[in-house]
Amino acid sequence: MANKHTVLTGDRPTGPLHLGHYVGSLLSRVALQDTHNQYIMIADIQALTDNFETPQKVRDNVFEVAKDYLAIGIDPSKSTIFIQSLIPALAELTVFYLNLVTVSRLERNPTVKAEIQQKGFDTSLPAGFLCYPVSQAADITAFQAKVVPVGEDQLPMLEQTNEIVRRFNRIYSCEVLKEVEIWPGKVGRLVGIDGQLKASKSAGNAIYLSDGEEEVKRKVMAMFTDPTHLKVSDPGKVDGNVVFAYLDAFHHDKEEVAALKAHYQRGGLGDMTIKKLLLETLEALLAPIRQRRASISEKQVREILLEGTQLANKTANHTLQMVREAIGVEYF
Amino acid sequence: MANKHTVLTGDRPTGPLHLGHYVGSLLSRVALQDTHNQYIMIADIQALTDNFETPQKVRDNVFEVAKDYLAIGIDPSKSTIFIQSLIPALAELTVFYLNLVTVSRLERNPTVKAEIQQKGFDTSLPAGFLCYPVSQAADITAFQAKVVPVGEDQLPMLEQTNEIVRRFNRIYSCEVLKEVEIWPGKVGRLVGIDGQLKASKSAGNAIYLSDGEEEVKRKVMAMFTDPTHLKVSDPGKVDGNVVFAYLDAFHHDKEEVAALKAHYQRGGLGDMTIKKLLLETLEALLAPIRQRRASISEKQVREILLEGTQLANKTANHTLQMVREAIGVEYF
Repeated sequence: MANKHTVLTGDRPTGPLHLGHYVGSLLSRVALQDTHNQYIMIADIQALTDNFETPQKVRDNVFEVAKDYLAIGIDPSKSTIFIQSLIPALAELTVFYLNLVTVSRLERNPTVKAEIQQKGFDTSLPAGFLCYPVSQAADITAFQAKVVPVGEDQLPMLEQTNEIVRRFNRIYSCEVLKEVEIWPGKVGRLVGIDGQLKASKSAGNAIYLSDGEEEVKRKVMAMFTDPTHLKVSDPGKVDGNVVFAYLDAFHHDKEEVAALKAHYQRGGLGDMTIKKLLLETLEALLAPIRQRRASISEKQVREILLEGTQLANKTANHTLQMVREAIGVEYF
Repeated sequence: MANKHTVLTGDRPTGPLHLGHYVGSLLSRVALQDTHNQYIMIADIQALTDNFETPQKVRDNVFEVAKDYLAIGIDPSKSTIFIQSLIPALAELTVFYLNLVTVSRLERNPTVKAEIQQKGFDTSLPAGFLCYPVSQAADITAFQAKVVPVGEDQLPMLEQTNEIVRRFNRIYSCEVLKEVEIWPGKVGRLVGIDGQLKASKSAGNAIYLSDGEEEVKRKVMAMFTDPTHLKVSDPGKVDGNVVFAYLDAFHHDKEEVAALKAHYQRGGLGDMTIKKLLLETLEALLAPIRQRRASISEKQVREILLEGTQLANKTANHTLQMVREAIGVEYF
């Protein structure tokens, strides 16, 4: 453990996890837990920054997300799964760090700017939402994470964290906080079943890890393919065809997929055939996940979260103590 | 205890307390501790919002301020004295409340606006400073304070707190948080020894409770009186005369002060005479305070702060738990 680098990952618990998460982050976490000291945060505080009027949505999904983790192979003996709001040191670090960031710097953050527009906050921007990059800096530094696997759209967040780290170390003449490194791995993306750029909870165009077989079938059958591919004998388009995007992501045999694409393009391969193949492929992945999910009791999830949260508190409190010592506000 | 209303007071520990504090707040706290359940907060987190680059100033004064409290008669068996940064629930409540306030609302806060101008923050405004009214709302609600004795310039802060209280109770359909009432008492003001409107740490024109007799004498002798009152026989002005302002504030015999004022105005009363009387008056107040201050050991202060902080944590954690239950983020 001691020689391993720390990685911090996590999700906002605003819905169950889906195949987009699987491709984008969950698979890599299963690998990372063997090579890294991995903390997985269920980010309820962050989820509340834009769901504070619908907290039930956040509350209901904390345990669902934890179950998803366990179902896809996150091993609690290797990864520390914890709930953000149960780590007081994160709030305390946030309050200290808020002094080190200017309001105008937060307003310039490209990720936050884009999200503010997207959510239509405008003049009703909650302070908590503007400040959430500071809260993220608290999360990252609390666990002294060297790596935070995020997509390119999240890079401004890591820059914000590193600015806080440098400013803190400079003002308090210390090296207590560590800069986080850019994740060298590729963050996979998965289109929505409707062909939209991204499968997401909010767009309702995702296949959930917890979906039953019938639900998966319904979603695969509804997948966007090539609207001009009317007869089986017609040549079909592969680009923008969701079924092939999913086969690319989940079918183990790349050659077979390449051959199917060629066949589809020259005509003679029906949508139903490729959809059936995709359904089989997805079921081969999802059936064992579903089975494992069903075998996990509420009690087990509770115990795993309690234990993870306890361990996370220990680490975060240690960092908080160093931070307080560096600032010079240790009194006893 | 149970039937008493709770009052929250406190100071930013950025310097030792002075006679301005004595007149403005300390005296009333000595009275309030008999009629109210009084929490006195040493607000180091708040002090850091505009002193984060000079934390030593904050750190050094936490114990000094506590000693000042004890020296003027704050009784730790009646009042709970605690250190803000040692109450994690305050940071946690702050993070929850940040979602309930818009950035533009914080930017409109008259008190903060005036302070931003005064401190010349402009575009370099730290987020922590902009957000400190939210942190204050956390302080006030954490202890369910019904009364917060502040001057009129601080009323926008209480309004901000009450807005958060109402919004919280409305969004989460509860009555967990209580609105704070306007303090009906008068907050006294004391001019600086240089005649400036207010005695303050930053202006360096205050007589500290911890000043030695020689220092008090030096300051009284340097007090601004009436620059046109050149000879003892000259008529002198009483308005704007600092010595009379202090006699008004500290001399027990109002009639004697009135007689002296009349004498001074018609001529024949020298500055030295009234300064000597003021010095005697102040020494009668300060000598016992100085004596009590000297009798308090570091160990005693430490124990009192530890005990107060423990009690404050209990109260604040209780509120935090109710807040979490109301939001619905209690998981275990």
